[in-house]
Amino acid sequence: MTTSGVQDGDTGRIEAFSDAVFAIAITLLIIEIGVPHAEGAESLSDKLLHLWPSYFGYAISFLVIGTVWANHHNRFRLISRSDHVMLFLNIVFLMCVAFIPFPTALLAEYIRDEAYRTTAVAVYTGTLAVTAVFFTVLWLYAAVDYRLIDRTVDPLLLRAMTRRYVFGMVLYILAFALAFVSPAASLALIIILALLFVLPEPDGSSGARGTGRNSARG
Amino acid sequence: MTTSGVQDGDTGRIEAFSDAVFAIAITLLIIEIGVPHAEGAESLSDKLLHLWPSYFGYAISFLVIGTVWANHHNRFRLISRSDHVMLFLNIVFLMCVAFIPFPTALLAEYIRDEAYRTTAVAVYTGTLAVTAVFFTVLWLYAAVDYRLIDRTVDPLLLRAMTRRYVFGMVLYILAFALAFVSPAASLALIIILALLFVLPEPDGSSGARGTGRNSARG
Amino acid sequence: MTTSGVQDGDTGRIEAFSDAVFAIAITLLIIEIGVPHAEGAESLSDKLLHLWPSYFGYAISFLVIGTVWANHHNRFRLISRSDHVMLFLNIVFLMCVAFIPFPTALLAEYIRDEAYRTTAVAVYTGTLAVTAVFFTVLWLYAAVDYRLIDRTVDPLLLRAMTRRYVFGMVLYILAFALAFVSPAASLALIIILALLFVLPEPDGSSGARGTGRNSARG
Amino acid sequence: MTTSGVQDGDTGRIEAFSDAVFAIAITLLIIEIGVPHAEGAESLSDKLLHLWPSYFGYAISFLVIGTVWANHHNRFRLISRSDHVMLFLNIVFLMCVAFIPFPTALLAEYIRDEAYRTTAVAVYTGTLAVTAVFFTVLWLYAAVDYRLIDRTVDPLLLRAMTRRYVFGMVLYILAFALAFVSPAASLALIIILALLFVLPEPDGSSGARGTGRNSARG
Repeated sequence: MTTSGVQDGDTGRIEAFSDAVFAIAITLLIIEIGVPHAEGAESLSDKLLHLWPSYFGYAISFLVIGTVWANHHNRFRLISRSDHVMLFLNIVFLMCVAFIPFPTALLAEYIRDEAYRTTAVAVYTGTLAVTAVFFTVLWLYAAVDYRLIDRTVDPLLLRAMTRRYVFGMVLYILAFALAFVSPAASLALIIILALLFVLPEPDGSSGARGTGRNSARG
Repeated sequence: MTTSGVQDGDTGRIEAFSDAVFAIAITLLIIEIGVPHAEGAESLSDKLLHLWPSYFGYAISFLVIGTVWANHHNRFRLISRSDHVMLFLNIVFLMCVAFIPFPTALLAEYIRDEAYRTTAVAVYTGTLAVTAVFFTVLWLYAAVDYRLIDRTVDPLLLRAMTRRYVFGMVLYILAFALAFVSPAASLALIIILALLFVLPEPDGSSGARGTGRNSARG
Repeated sequence: MTTSGVQDGDTGRIEAFSDAVFAIAITLLIIEIGVPHAEGAESLSDKLLHLWPSYFGYAISFLVIGTVWANHHNRFRLISRSDHVMLFLNIVFLMCVAFIPFPTALLAEYIRDEAYRTTAVAVYTGTLAVTAVFFTVLWLYAAVDYRLIDRTVDPLLLRAMTRRYVFGMVLYILAFALAFVSPAASLALIIILALLFVLPEPDGSSGARGTGRNSARG
Repeated sequence: MTTSGVQDGDTGRIEAFSDAVFAIAITLLIIEIGVPHAEGAESLSDKLLHLWPSYFGYAISFLVIGTVWANHHNRFRLISRSDHVMLFLNIVFLMCVAFIPFPTALLAEYIRDEAYRTTAVAVYTGTLAVTAVFFTVLWLYAAVDYRLIDRTVDPLLLRAMTRRYVFGMVLYILAFALAFVSPAASLALIIILALLFVLPEPDGSSGARGTGRNSARG
């Protein structure tokens, strides 16, 4: 087994562990939705429709965690080494991701309530913003001076990715700030950010493409 | 590392993430079943037997998710590339799969209640039908014009698989429609669809066989 | 990619999925234990000690699922192919494994209650017995006539494994029968069965050894 | 497939299973935190701030399990073989890790309550101390006389690792003892132990580095 093989296996195990945390956090979202209680002349359909904030929270958080997973995947494609600090930053980042089911349940509980909506949306978008900050710190730690990045990666590509990641983080922080002005606009921005992911990117550096270095598209 | 190696690893990580979501969703089903409370002269056995709708829901959803997993496995054996749209479609598909524990608990709660049975069965089979629709969309996106499929795959095999997947989707939608006529018949169809999976298929293209391209059976 | 490579990957993905279900079922055991409520002059230590049946159930089920995992691992080392029926039997087997947290919670709830103890222990050991039956059926399906086993496996080894697995199944069924005579003896047998696993086996065919074909021990 | 390949795969599957248990235990921590109920003139922010012990417990346990995971990873890099006893010790060790969400919830519930704080902190740190003991026993079983360690590993490195692991265990036991004198000091020590992990280690033998045998740092 070559040193390079061991290194691949190394970030490989960090990715596998992170993937497992993503998968569990995303799947745990459903247990926050309890079966409604209907009796006598009550309509079960109405009770189910009344739970729409729970479905909404489920869908939005599923999309957010799903795209963060794909993004994590993409960043680690370029990271070829790991060290203690990176491992620690990744654990703190995962701590934020695994926390998401809690503000999601909070959002579902209070989104209809005028008095509490701002708080619920601020906690929700704030959690996402903090997650984005640690995600960016993790990336910067790895990317600055090619600390954990393969030397063969094009510096222009690296700079483009860093710019995009910092810009994404700023938008998440903006969504958090927006929560205090308009909770609806704040959530709309979060949804747009998740949906934007579906768009192809010109330089081929983002998303779970066939290869991170191949900028041609078929 | 060759481009081909990266591509394999790529759909490989999507499969691993999907598998984890399947495994968690299937195992979470049990936490919807609470231990019954018995006291004094009450019979614990009776209380346990009274929970049969929960065991039934557990078994049927376990079978459904299990066969969907095997099917997902089979489809991805032919998919050799990924892109943003496919990744997005797969996340939406997993969102449906991870949602299944909720309608399962709903089914267990209301299957005995004449007034609510139709609603519960419709929500349950409706969730499965929506899941089947996204599963088919995901497949069609990958298969049309060999967008994400290896060029070496036999076009006849590809067409046969597409036909079967679309037909399976139609049966799930039929089960949903049946719920409004006869909830029992609707559930029976779902069970038959899951059990059919155990049958060998003549052209060897379906199920977790040794190889997707080897149509001979020992 | 050779046919053999695909086949390895194939049972490999079944094993990975099964491992994930084992890991989740084993870890979910803890959420059945609720934090006790203490107030005023009550002793929290007493309240915690009073939960001993929960710790006992946790420990015994953890050991049982852990050894079943290792055993599953061992059996699949010899299984080199898969087909629809085996996949189906494995899903049914996993359905039993993932069910274990429910009878574990039942056992913890009623082990102290004379009137309900027999029922709780019978349901618990009965679940394990049914699990053992499906585990044996899965093995027999794969092993008879080398249906899914590599032809290079020594027939004597295969026969010895089959004998041991059938014998283990009989002991689990015996533990279930014992529940109606003496719940304590029944549970004692389950614990002994789990602890027996730690003993080395003379022919080297069981347990997560370095290789399933190397019968020498260092 | 060579014997060596099989052996790698072997401890590989133990590591994968352990990683899954770590990932699930760490992610389950969040479901112990319930959404607070606010009504009328109550402040949702106050209610959320009032939950600080839950966030604190979540963060500390996430860090502890995360660093234990990285440490497990590091130890298994040197372990090249497995046997029944090691497998059994690893299951008992995982039983401790998967138990952590329970004392974490206990800690969150009672840390503010003068009368119960000592008990809660003692149970929490006691669980971590028992986990550390089994972790050390597992290591000693593997390391003594190179029982499961590759002969090529430098004996000085092995001895240095053993010393460090035993020392870490002693500090966890000390944290447990401290709980009866000063719960705050006890928890502070646990946090320090987790944060210490971020520091680089001079001989390169600890942490998820590129290779366990390469003592040079870039």
